[in-house]
Amino acid sequence: MNADILNPRSIAIVGASTNPKKISTIILQNLVSGGYNGKVYPVNPKYEEIVGRKSYPSILSIEEDLDQVCIVIPSHLVEEVIDQCIEKKVKSVVIISAGFKETGKEGRLLEEGIAKKLKNANIRLIGPNSLGYINNNENINLSFARKNPGSGDIAFISQSGALCTAILDMACEDNFGFSHIISIGNKADIFENELIEMFQNDENTKAIALYMEEFSDGKEFVKLAQASKKPLVVIAPGSSEKAVEAISSHTGSLVSSYDTITTAINKGNAIQAQSSVELYNIMKLISNERIPRGKKIAVVSNAGGPGIIATDNIEKHGLILSELGEKTTKKLLKELPSASSVKNPIDLLGDALADRFEQAISICEDDKEVDSILVILTPQLITDIVGTARAIIKIQNKTSKPIFACFLGNHDIKSGVNLLKEYNIYTSSNIEATIEIIGKLVKYNNNIAKKDVVEVKDIKISAKHIDKVKECLSSEAVILPDDITESILKEHNIVIPEQIITPHIENAIEFSINRFPVVMKATSKDLAHKTDFKAVHLDIRTISEFESKFYELREAISKVTGTTSPDILIQEMVKSNTEVFIGATRQGDSKIYQDKGKGFGHLLAIGQGGIYTEVYKDIKHVLIPTNREDMLEAISETRLSMIVDGYRGRPTLAKEKLLDMLENIQRLLVSYPHIISMDINPVMLTEDKVVAVDAKLYIKD
Amino acid sequence: MNADILNPRSIAIVGASTNPKKISTIILQNLVSGGYNGKVYPVNPKYEEIVGRKSYPSILSIEEDLDQVCIVIPSHLVEEVIDQCIEKKVKSVVIISAGFKETGKEGRLLEEGIAKKLKNANIRLIGPNSLGYINNNENINLSFARKNPGSGDIAFISQSGALCTAILDMACEDNFGFSHIISIGNKADIFENELIEMFQNDENTKAIALYMEEFSDGKEFVKLAQASKKPLVVIAPGSSEKAVEAISSHTGSLVSSYDTITTAINKGNAIQAQSSVELYNIMKLISNERIPRGKKIAVVSNAGGPGIIATDNIEKHGLILSELGEKTTKKLLKELPSASSVKNPIDLLGDALADRFEQAISICEDDKEVDSILVILTPQLITDIVGTARAIIKIQNKTSKPIFACFLGNHDIKSGVNLLKEYNIYTSSNIEATIEIIGKLVKYNNNIAKKDVVEVKDIKISAKHIDKVKECLSSEAVILPDDITESILKEHNIVIPEQIITPHIENAIEFSINRFPVVMKATSKDLAHKTDFKAVHLDIRTISEFESKFYELREAISKVTGTTSPDILIQEMVKSNTEVFIGATRQGDSKIYQDKGKGFGHLLAIGQGGIYTEVYKDIKHVLIPTNREDMLEAISETRLSMIVDGYRGRPTLAKEKLLDMLENIQRLLVSYPHIISMDINPVMLTEDKVVAVDAKLYIKD
Repeated sequence: MNADILNPRSIAIVGASTNPKKISTIILQNLVSGGYNGKVYPVNPKYEEIVGRKSYPSILSIEEDLDQVCIVIPSHLVEEVIDQCIEKKVKSVVIISAGFKETGKEGRLLEEGIAKKLKNANIRLIGPNSLGYINNNENINLSFARKNPGSGDIAFISQSGALCTAILDMACEDNFGFSHIISIGNKADIFENELIEMFQNDENTKAIALYMEEFSDGKEFVKLAQASKKPLVVIAPGSSEKAVEAISSHTGSLVSSYDTITTAINKGNAIQAQSSVELYNIMKLISNERIPRGKKIAVVSNAGGPGIIATDNIEKHGLILSELGEKTTKKLLKELPSASSVKNPIDLLGDALADRFEQAISICEDDKEVDSILVILTPQLITDIVGTARAIIKIQNKTSKPIFACFLGNHDIKSGVNLLKEYNIYTSSNIEATIEIIGKLVKYNNNIAKKDVVEVKDIKISAKHIDKVKECLSSEAVILPDDITESILKEHNIVIPEQIITPHIENAIEFSINRFPVVMKATSKDLAHKTDFKAVHLDIRTISEFESKFYELREAISKVTGTTSPDILIQEMVKSNTEVFIGATRQGDSKIYQDKGKGFGHLLAIGQGGIYTEVYKDIKHVLIPTNREDMLEAISETRLSMIVDGYRGRPTLAKEKLLDMLENIQRLLVSYPHIISMDINPVMLTEDKVVAVDAKLYIKD
Repeated sequence: MNADILNPRSIAIVGASTNPKKISTIILQNLVSGGYNGKVYPVNPKYEEIVGRKSYPSILSIEEDLDQVCIVIPSHLVEEVIDQCIEKKVKSVVIISAGFKETGKEGRLLEEGIAKKLKNANIRLIGPNSLGYINNNENINLSFARKNPGSGDIAFISQSGALCTAILDMACEDNFGFSHIISIGNKADIFENELIEMFQNDENTKAIALYMEEFSDGKEFVKLAQASKKPLVVIAPGSSEKAVEAISSHTGSLVSSYDTITTAINKGNAIQAQSSVELYNIMKLISNERIPRGKKIAVVSNAGGPGIIATDNIEKHGLILSELGEKTTKKLLKELPSASSVKNPIDLLGDALADRFEQAISICEDDKEVDSILVILTPQLITDIVGTARAIIKIQNKTSKPIFACFLGNHDIKSGVNLLKEYNIYTSSNIEATIEIIGKLVKYNNNIAKKDVVEVKDIKISAKHIDKVKECLSSEAVILPDDITESILKEHNIVIPEQIITPHIENAIEFSINRFPVVMKATSKDLAHKTDFKAVHLDIRTISEFESKFYELREAISKVTGTTSPDILIQEMVKSNTEVFIGATRQGDSKIYQDKGKGFGHLLAIGQGGIYTEVYKDIKHVLIPTNREDMLEAISETRLSMIVDGYRGRPTLAKEKLLDMLENIQRLLVSYPHIISMDINPVMLTEDKVVAVDAKLYIKD
C-alpha cells in the first residue's frame, strides 16, 4: 500500500455542514484545527460557504486535482459520489458512513458494489463504517474521534470505533500519543495486513497495535507477523464459537476460532492482550522500551502482605522470584534496618522513607539475577509517596531494567502516581494485572529469539489418493471411509495397528488367530449413524469370545443400518503408557495452501487422549506450516508432557517418534487440504512406539 | 468479648509526646480531633503538659479509674507499664509498639510474658504491633491511620497494618466509611474470632471484612463463619506452601494451606477476595446491598466489541447471559433503532444518547430472566456520559437488581464515573474484574441458602485399633503398617480388594489360584525406603507368571531392605471405569477434634486418581466435619465428575457408593485423629462398585 493514502495533498469532505453537531463538521474541524497543510474542499450543494471556506456543490465542480475524498452522507447516496470519484480520478476514498455490510444483506451488496467499482478504477478505500484516520506524522486528523492524544510512536489499527475511542480517552489522560490511528471499519478494501506492512517502513512507528474482530487473511497475517521487525500488540476478543460447527468430531467440539487466533498471534512477533486496559498498558511499555530481558523479578515493598500476593502471582504467570546474590544480600543487610526482610520479596518495613526504597531498588538493579523490579508501596503514616516516586524515576532513568510501580490506595497516592506517569513509569494499583503483563512481555521477548519460518512450499507433498478423496466430496462435510483413511495414513508413514476390514467372520478369525488380544469395531461409515450402540469390543482373547462378539456387533450394526453383512474392523490390541490426542481443523477452504487462499490453514491440536480428552481439554495448538521445534513446544505446554517426559521415576516415552508423527501429519494435511477436520484418538504412546489407533478424517471443499 | 473494650470511658496514652511527627502524637490528635468524649490522659514523665492537657508521669499517678491504656513506647520498656496496668486494674491494653514476635525469638518471649501477665490479671489486649483501632459508632479513633474515612456499616479487621492503610486510602477517596477498623497486629490475646462474634451484635455493622495472614483458631473460625448472620469478606493471601511438608504423601504434595483456607472460607457465610481492590469493591457492594439474586446477566453497551469481551467472561466466571423474554425483545425492537442488536448482549450503537441507555436498561430490569445488568459505555463522539450515569442512578434507585457500570476510558468518562460513585453505583473500567466480582457475589448468595451444619459430636466414632495406632506414633510422621491400615479401613466399611500379606509363596499361590488375575506389591513399610524399584506387578494370570514375579519382587525388596523373606501383598485385580483419588491432610495436632483443639481439622481431597493425579491436579476439597451434600458438591466441581456422571452416552458410575466411602472416611478420620495424612490412590470406580485399592495412612501426634 502506498503510504500517500494516509498523506494526501488534498481532501474533499462530502457532506460537510455548518451544523456543529454533525460528524462531517467535526471531521472538518479536526482536520483544519489539527494543522493539515494540504488543500481542504467542503462539498455540499446546500451551502455557499462552510466555516469560511467555499463549499462545492459536488467534487466534480472542484477544478484542481483531488487526492482523497472523505464521504459522510447517508449510505444510499454514497454510490453516486463514488461514480464522481472515479470520474474525478481521485486516488483514495474514506467512507465514514455506516449502513453497509453491518446492517445485513442489502447493505452488504451495496458495499460490495462500491468496492468493486473502486477496485476497477484503481482507487483505494478505507471503510465504510469507519471513524476515519489520524496521521500524526503529518498533522492529518481526518476522523471524528473525540480527541487526538497527539503524536507518538505506536500505530493503532482498530476494527471497532468504540474500543478505539476508549483507548484514545485513556491516552489523552496520559498524553500518550500515536503515530497513526486508523479505523478500518468494514474493511471493504484496505485491511490490517497492508497497513502492518506499510508501518514496517514508517520510521516514526515503533510498534503496531491492533483491535481485530476478524482477520481478513489469516495466513498472510501470520507471515507478516512472523516477518515483522516491529512488535504487534493484538486484542482479538470473542469467537469462543466452535471452529467447525457442522461436524461431530472431537476436534470440532474442542477447538474454537479463538484458539486459532491465539495460536496465530503467538506464532508472530506479537503479544496478545485480553482487555483494552491491558492493550493500552502494553503499548505504553513497548513505547517506553520497558520489556524485561528475562523472567527474574525482585519485589521491593514497605509491607509484608502485598509481597506475599506478588509472590503468588509471579509463580502463576510463569515468572521467577529472583534469588538475590550474596553480594546483594550483604549490601541490603548493611543498608536496611535489622527487622527488614532482605530475602526477595524485600520488606522495607512500614516506616521506610524514600531513601530506603531508593537504596533497595538500586541494590536490586545492580544484581544480574534481577531482570525487572516491582515496587509496591502502601501509604502508611510516614510513607514518602512523592519522594519514593522520585527515587523510582531517578533509578529508571539510569537503567534499562524496567521498574514497575504498584502504589496501593487511591487518594493519598495520587501525587506519586501522577509524577510516575509524567515520567512514563508504569504504575497500577493492581498487583496481579501488573505481574500478568510482565509475564506476557517476558514470554514475548523469549519468543522472538527463535524465528525459523516454515512455508508451505518447504513441505514435500504426496497425494496418491487425492482422486479417491475428491470423489467423496459432498456439499456437507463427510467422513472418509476407513480404507481410504488407512491408505492415506500409510502413505505418510503414520503407524497404525495391523488391521483388517471385512464382513466375513472367517477372514476376521484368520487375521486374529495369531494376533490375540484383538479389538473389534464398527467402521466409521456405520458409526456416522447417530444412534448409540456398543461399537467397540476390546481385549478379545479367544476364538469363542471373538465369535460371540462378532455376531453381537454385526447384529447391532444391522439394526442401525439395515445392512445384513456389514464391514467390521479388526485391529491388533495396542497397549500404551498413555493415550494421546492428535486433531486438526481447517480455517479456510480447501484452496487455503494455494497462493490466493484466505484463512489460517490447519490448526493442529495435541494433548491428552482417550476418555479424558474432553474432561481435561489438555490440548495445545500449532498452526500449519510449522517446524519440529514449535511442535515440541506445544507438547511441552500440555500437562500430559509430564507423563511423556517420565515424571517421578516413570519411564520416558517415545517423544521423538511422536514428533515424527506430527511432522507426517503436517505433510498429510498439506497434501490433502480437503481435510476439514481430523481426529486421531487415541494415539497409543509407549516407551518406544507411537501408534495411531483410531483415525477419522472429515473432508469438505 | 465485651464490646466495651472498643468503647472505653477513659484512655491513657503512654508515650504521648509534643513532637508532631511521633506516632503517639498522631494517635492523641486522632483521638481528640475525632470527637472522643471520654477522658484522655497523656502519660510521659518528660512533659508537664501535652497539647493543652496535663501529662502524667505514669498511669499510677492518674487518680481516676482507667478503662484502657494505649502503649506507644519502645518494646523493651513495655513490660514495666504492663505491671502498672495490672496494679491500676485497667480493663484493657492496646500495644501499638512493634518489636515483639515479628522480630524473632527474644521478641516472642517478651510478647508471651506480657500476654500471660495480662491474662492472669484478666486484662484484655489488642496488639502488639498494631495500628490501633477506630470505632466510628462512638467517635473513637485510637489509631495512627493516615485517614479515617468516617462511619459506615462494614467492620474491618486487619492483621496487616499496611493493607489496612491502602484500603482506607481507597475508602477516603470515595467517602466510604466503616463502623470499626481494627488492626489486630500480632494477636497476642484478642484475635479475629472474638471480634467476628462481637460484630454479630453490633447493629451498625452489616458485614465484616477480614485481612488475615493466619487464622488463630481455624476450626472455631469455620463455625463462626457458618453461623454468621452477616457476610464475611476475607482476603487471606499467600501460603502456597505445602500443607504437610515432611511427608512424601501425594496429598502432602498436592494440598497447600491455602486450599484449606479457601475451603474454610467457602464453607461459611463468606466471600473470598484475591486482592485489596477486590476486597474493597465487594465491601462496597455488600454495604450498598448490590448482591444479584441469580446468575443471569443482561449486558447493555453502545459498542459491539466490549459486549463480546463481556460475553466471554460471563461464561468463564460461572454466570449466564440472560435469555431475554419475548416481551422484552419486542419492547427493545420498538424502542431501539433497527440496526441495534436486541439480543443479549444488547448493542445500542455508537450514537446512543442517555435516553436510549435508559430505555434499554429499564426494559431489561423489568425482565424476570435478568438478575443484574452490566452497562458498558465507550466514550464515542456524541455519547452523553453524565446523562447515562444519571439514567443508571435513576433506575438503580427504583430496583433491587444491581446495575454494574463499566465506563471504558479515563479522561472524558471521569465526570460520569464520579457521579456514579457519589450515588454508590459500582463502577470500573475493567470488564473482566467486574464480572469476576459478580460471579463471586452470586456464588456466595447461592451458598448461604444451604446451611446444614455438621459438628464433630454428630459423627459416630469407632476406634477399635486406636491402641495399635498409638503404639506406632513417633516424633516424626510415620506410615501405618498395611495390616493395621487394612483393619481400620474394614472397621469403617471401606471396601478394599481381597488381599493377603505374606512372606510365603505357598500361601500367596493358594490365595491367588482362584482369583487370577492378581496384583503383587511390596508393602508400605518396604516402599517407605526411598530407593526406586519395580514394586508393583499388575494383571498376573498364571501360576508360572506368579512364581517368577514373586521371586523377582522378593529379590528387589531384599536388596533394598536386607530382609531375606519380606512380606508381600497380593490383591485381586480390580478393573475400573475410572480411577479416583481420595486424600486427607490434618491442619492442627491430633487433639484437633477435642474442645480446645486449634487448627482446621482434616481437609478431605477428592479427584482424579491414578497416574494423572499430579498431572491434572483435578482435586477439590471439603473440610471435616461436613455433610454428604458438601461432599457431592466437591465431586461435582471436579472435571472427573463428567466421567462419574457418564457424559456422551458413557455409563454413569457408582456415585452414591463413592459418597458412602467419603462418609466412612470422614468417620475414620474423626475416630483416628492421629492420621496426619491419607492417600487412597487409586480408588477403583465402576458402574456398581467402589474399591479402595491402595491406601496409605500417615500418623503423627
